Amino acid sequence: MDASSSSSLPSPEPYTAKTIAKAAKAAFENSQLIPLSERVKALHEIRKELENAKEAILEANKRDLEAAQHDVDAGRMSITLLKRLDLNKGDKWDSMLQGVTDVANLPDPTGVVSYASELDDELELYRVSCPIGVLLVIFEARPEVVVNIAALAIKSGNAAILKGGKESTETARQLSAAIQTALSRTSLPRTYIQAIQTRAEVSALLELDQYIDLVIPRGSNSLVRNIQHNTRIPVMGHADGLCAVYLDESADLEKAVRVVVDSKTDYPAACNSAETLVIHRSLLHTVWPEVARALVAADVQLLCDAASLSSISSLTPSIPKFTSHVHPVTPSAYITEHLSLTMAVLTVDTLHAAIQHINAHSSHHTDCIVTENELAASTFCRGVDSAGTFVNASTRFADGFRYGFGTEVGISTGRIHARGPVGLEGLATYKYMLRSKGDKGHVVAEFGSGDGKKKFKHAPIEATSVPF
Amino acid sequence: MDASSSSSLPSPEPYTAKTIAKAAKAAFENSQLIPLSERVKALHEIRKELENAKEAILEANKRDLEAAQHDVDAGRMSITLLKRLDLNKGDKWDSMLQGVTDVANLPDPTGVVSYASELDDELELYRVSCPIGVLLVIFEARPEVVVNIAALAIKSGNAAILKGGKESTETARQLSAAIQTALSRTSLPRTYIQAIQTRAEVSALLELDQYIDLVIPRGSNSLVRNIQHNTRIPVMGHADGLCAVYLDESADLEKAVRVVVDSKTDYPAACNSAETLVIHRSLLHTVWPEVARALVAADVQLLCDAASLSSISSLTPSIPKFTSHVHPVTPSAYITEHLSLTMAVLTVDTLHAAIQHINAHSSHHTDCIVTENELAASTFCRGVDSAGTFVNASTRFADGFRYGFGTEVGISTGRIHARGPVGLEGLATYKYMLRSKGDKGHVVAEFGSGDGKKKFKHAPIEATSVPF
Repeated sequence: MDASSSSSLPSPEPYTAKTIAKAAKAAFENSQLIPLSERVKALHEIRKELENAKEAILEANKRDLEAAQHDVDAGRMSITLLKRLDLNKGDKWDSMLQGVTDVANLPDPTGVVSYASELDDELELYRVSCPIGVLLVIFEARPEVVVNIAALAIKSGNAAILKGGKESTETARQLSAAIQTALSRTSLPRTYIQAIQTRAEVSALLELDQYIDLVIPRGSNSLVRNIQHNTRIPVMGHADGLCAVYLDESADLEKAVRVVVDSKTDYPAACNSAETLVIHRSLLHTVWPEVARALVAADVQLLCDAASLSSISSLTPSIPKFTSHVHPVTPSAYITEHLSLTMAVLTVDTLHAAIQHINAHSSHHTDCIVTENELAASTFCRGVDSAGTFVNASTRFADGFRYGFGTEVGISTGRIHARGPVGLEGLATYKYMLRSKGDKGHVVAEFGSGDGKKKFKHAPIEATSVPF
Repeated sequence: MDASSSSSLPSPEPYTAKTIAKAAKAAFENSQLIPLSERVKALHEIRKELENAKEAILEANKRDLEAAQHDVDAGRMSITLLKRLDLNKGDKWDSMLQGVTDVANLPDPTGVVSYASELDDELELYRVSCPIGVLLVIFEARPEVVVNIAALAIKSGNAAILKGGKESTETARQLSAAIQTALSRTSLPRTYIQAIQTRAEVSALLELDQYIDLVIPRGSNSLVRNIQHNTRIPVMGHADGLCAVYLDESADLEKAVRVVVDSKTDYPAACNSAETLVIHRSLLHTVWPEVARALVAADVQLLCDAASLSSISSLTPSIPKFTSHVHPVTPSAYITEHLSLTMAVLTVDTLHAAIQHINAHSSHHTDCIVTENELAASTFCRGVDSAGTFVNASTRFADGFRYGFGTEVGISTGRIHARGPVGLEGLATYKYMLRSKGDKGHVVAEFGSGDGKKKFKHAPIEATSVPF
């Protein structure tokens, strides 16, 4: 075989991270003219196909669970992790399907005009929301995230590459196959949603900033941190959820007890649970003992600084649990995300000191003040540099569903693009469309400060969508 | 002197990149409660102090210019760069001062509510714009950028660290000194705006993502690219401005000539100038020869593909300039930002092919279609994945002032946070403030799907600012 005949038959591009990323970008670009109705249809097809393939998916899930049980028995996996894998547990399967329908029914985050101005007679500028491009979503354990993220990406018009945890490989493979089958019944490219399996592929993809526009890690602190430190692509997410509740001088006792207990105990493993309790010194013998009593009754381990420890030490004889639940704090406790029934306690002399401690130690996720004082509330909300600053409300409210977004893409502690709980809007960016309707088109050279030069008009246009 | 007495007198922290970054973060955090009026006062003080220090500043500028002249004579610097250094040229000094006043008069980008919802009776959520934190701004040559960026940062409530080009070191130092003197007459910390001098400091700062929240490079392609590749901190800006104009099948001749000539020649060194002309094949013997004639008359060098070259070759005898101005293209011309009177020309068979070429080769900055067809306009604007998609209007309109923002922080080709020309809004992020006005505060445990559980209300609140 001579060289010319061999070169006339190009060999297919090998299946590499670059091939995947290029295919995703091409799928995104080619999808820009596909109407929303087709994207919504894709979501309904996905739900249908998941129902069709239920048996195969749950069988794959069973294989993952068996392998996981093996790992649990060998002490290599926690029972909590194993439980998260089970797609047939409780109403998980049905919620997963319902989630797809819910996303289909959410308002379209794209095509929304947020700024419109007539720059000159017959020259109209529109800033309009549009998809970002290609998302790389990396998550752990829970296999239903494949479906959840695929639905969010399709609804918002973004292509996505998904990588789940190795524990759920079999399940994720079946779920992805069902999604691809569903996509093949629409005009969306099949490569719109792609799944990858290996960490090596993730590492390679994190280098490809020319194709991938946003990385969304959902999982443990170490997963997120590792990704943040290994890519130039923007990352949306949070590594830590180190939230604090501050009991202000004027804190109401009942509110203090309710808000602190809920923030700490409602779901200790969540990122929006409180890890630190900051107390104004004036409360040490009034509100604090009652809060401590309630926390200990809820089985919370308290790691106290000298002042807060000493002020409740006299209670120890009357509350036997105090002996096992109240301990002196070490400095590292104030920068630890316990994710369990453990809380670090700090005494401060002023609101300002509380704000300073929180800004220096919290992960800028969500922090709360309990106060009856409007000025203190206002000062705290502005002075604390976190995505959420709450007054007399549990940190656990920091959540996309509770905020009313209808979904949650994740929670971001970054300050660029999206911050706090992120809804579908967080998967959109915007572009500017400018249209001249003038007889001769519009050119810049006609504008300026000289004689006979045009001046810009900059008259606001009332518009919610682009009229062309 | 014994060890204990020496340790009782802590030596001042050495002046390092980390010290600077920490000081900036502290200045930012401490400034959160300082009202807008004080920030505006700071801007007026800066203008006053610049006027006071005019002589010293212009003398420093003279020293920079002399050193630069030396470099120009030695062939180490371009005369263009030298000209940019001159603070006393034309109305540059006065515009710089006026710019400070203009920024002072712009609307406050912070404190604006973009989402407000009553989650439950007496539980109110507000999403409110706020400063980002610490900006690191790196720029070249033009020393007035120090003042410009300082004004934008102060107005938007961000602390900033500024690094200018080494060519303007003396001027930048005097400008910074004036800014610091002005700040010392306000309650803003002096470390709110800091200037650094060395590249080593920049390299060190680019590592400090715990203190620095956003990097804004303003300068050459290589400067921006180098920064993008050497930091995990989000970068707002653009490396290339590779803009295209597409002449659609239905393009009007006059509009085509005007828009192409303006896009190419109004200011060839600007990032929003067109570098590529894409032509529908049907125009090769109608519109294209006239456009070519106009471009060549404006001294533009045309690098043409075979089809566009052949269709105008018959004109060469009648237009002598064609011999010196029309040349065959090489593929690299389609990915080159010429920044001069040079334009690459490509012939395509369809609108779709034009969109594909632009998506694959442009820098996603600004691209234009010249067309009389509404559907083609709409398809181009949606199908081209760029920050600006224009119809019958010069690419040169892509500019913060022309868009009506009153200022321009830069132009971003990223898709995260801000895209296209960025106004003061681009220096703001948002946070969520949640306030319970309920008698007992609000806890999550009371909400849920069970009996006696509360349901979320999610009733929109009409609000433009936070009422507490």
